[in-house]
Amino acid sequence: MYRYALILEYDGSFFSGWQWQKDTPSVQTSLQAAIQSLTGEPITLYAAGRTDSGVHALGQVVHMDLSKSWSMDSLRRGINFYLKDIPIKILQAQEAPPLFHARFSALSRSYEYWILNRPSASALLEKRAWWIAAPLNQEAMIRGCALFQGHHDFSYFRHRDCQSASPFKTLEQFTLKSHHDYIVIDAKSRSFLHRQVRMMVGALVALGKEQWHCDHLSYLLAPERHTEPPRNRATTAPAHGLYLKQVDYGIPGFCTPNPVAFPHEMS
Amino acid sequence: MYRYALILEYDGSFFSGWQWQKDTPSVQTSLQAAIQSLTGEPITLYAAGRTDSGVHALGQVVHMDLSKSWSMDSLRRGINFYLKDIPIKILQAQEAPPLFHARFSALSRSYEYWILNRPSASALLEKRAWWIAAPLNQEAMIRGCALFQGHHDFSYFRHRDCQSASPFKTLEQFTLKSHHDYIVIDAKSRSFLHRQVRMMVGALVALGKEQWHCDHLSYLLAPERHTEPPRNRATTAPAHGLYLKQVDYGIPGFCTPNPVAFPHEMS
Repeated sequence: MYRYALILEYDGSFFSGWQWQKDTPSVQTSLQAAIQSLTGEPITLYAAGRTDSGVHALGQVVHMDLSKSWSMDSLRRGINFYLKDIPIKILQAQEAPPLFHARFSALSRSYEYWILNRPSASALLEKRAWWIAAPLNQEAMIRGCALFQGHHDFSYFRHRDCQSASPFKTLEQFTLKSHHDYIVIDAKSRSFLHRQVRMMVGALVALGKEQWHCDHLSYLLAPERHTEPPRNRATTAPAHGLYLKQVDYGIPGFCTPNPVAFPHEMS
Repeated sequence: MYRYALILEYDGSFFSGWQWQKDTPSVQTSLQAAIQSLTGEPITLYAAGRTDSGVHALGQVVHMDLSKSWSMDSLRRGINFYLKDIPIKILQAQEAPPLFHARFSALSRSYEYWILNRPSASALLEKRAWWIAAPLNQEAMIRGCALFQGHHDFSYFRHRDCQSASPFKTLEQFTLKSHHDYIVIDAKSRSFLHRQVRMMVGALVALGKEQWHCDHLSYLLAPERHTEPPRNRATTAPAHGLYLKQVDYGIPGFCTPNPVAFPHEMS
């Protein structure tokens, strides 16, 4: 068997998420069907991040085993041919070491969350960014980002169905940058709890709208000091603003996606 | 009567263009219907640029007359309410002087053309950029841009149905910038011939693919020296890479759209 890694871009609006759900195609089933059409053999795909319904990917990484050897270019082109009308594209195919696992070998995942903060919605970014009309206090949001960074108990920032054994995670990066009417939040960690990024962004927006004070966020990040559950929990930011940007495996030149989704200002 | 100017963003993929064509909704008819639902009076819209089918707008400007006086905020919000499921959004509403005309008062129009130049197509930019897999020689394209700038006879860069009396135009700006896999071409002129920007971009790509030499472009820009029609004409770049970005009226603070469509790199 030959093990291959693929780097993918997809538009999450068309899928039920990475994994199969009733009635809507999933990224996994759509991609598996395309690969099986090309190779003629049944395969199973393993993904670095099991993105939820609506969440986009700029650099999702998956692996699979094939019985025949393929050139990287014909594998990439061949799968893309069978994906012609499906909003998933293979950006890169790479040979992977036999023990490589897209999920378990990952050293870190990077996500990006896009907010459009202006009075009018956008026609072109309808399913690509969270539109918030009310002005946001970015200074408060930046202070919130600083509180989130590092090692914390994220019990109040996980979905109730989250299956992770421990609520502790270490955020390597959680920063905010803004440009014109856009706010982009960068999140990087070895791994995340289920819905963690979207719940952290929900909390940042509560700070930005001045519905919360930073003290409340500090309080939520210290559940060991609570005698009873807090009243104001974080709401979840919508899926369509979230992008799985990059997965790092610590192997130079291996799985280095192009993290740029849209033309960027160069002037 | 009160004259109002509106600045619009729209996703051109959903429309037959600014003007009405059989079977597909036009931007003009969709927007007129929304405004009539709000105001209850029949109106006619005049646009700065009559964009073709598939062409997007980040800052189209239109004007109309209404019998009642409106606050700018309620006009913008009210029209956007009736546009809820239609990919047109009013970014700004402004009171306009009685003699203001969105088309005839414009001092210049700025367009942007987006090319994605990488081996794989994009899932997220499917109808937003022209994907070209073959590597492009950007140096040759930049030399081509320089040849286009200034005052020329653009007879070979206009649609055969173009109704402009003269083929002469003066390009104030025609420049190329690139970032990662993206090439963005900026074009600014008082006005353009029909399809001019897309045919100029088509010529740039012929230079980039090294199918043409710059001499051929110089030759096409000097039709007065031709004894017979040239063999290699410019092909037309697809509509879905083109954005009407900004219209300038020389009135400070008037009709200044936000020309940024997507989050831009700030690092």
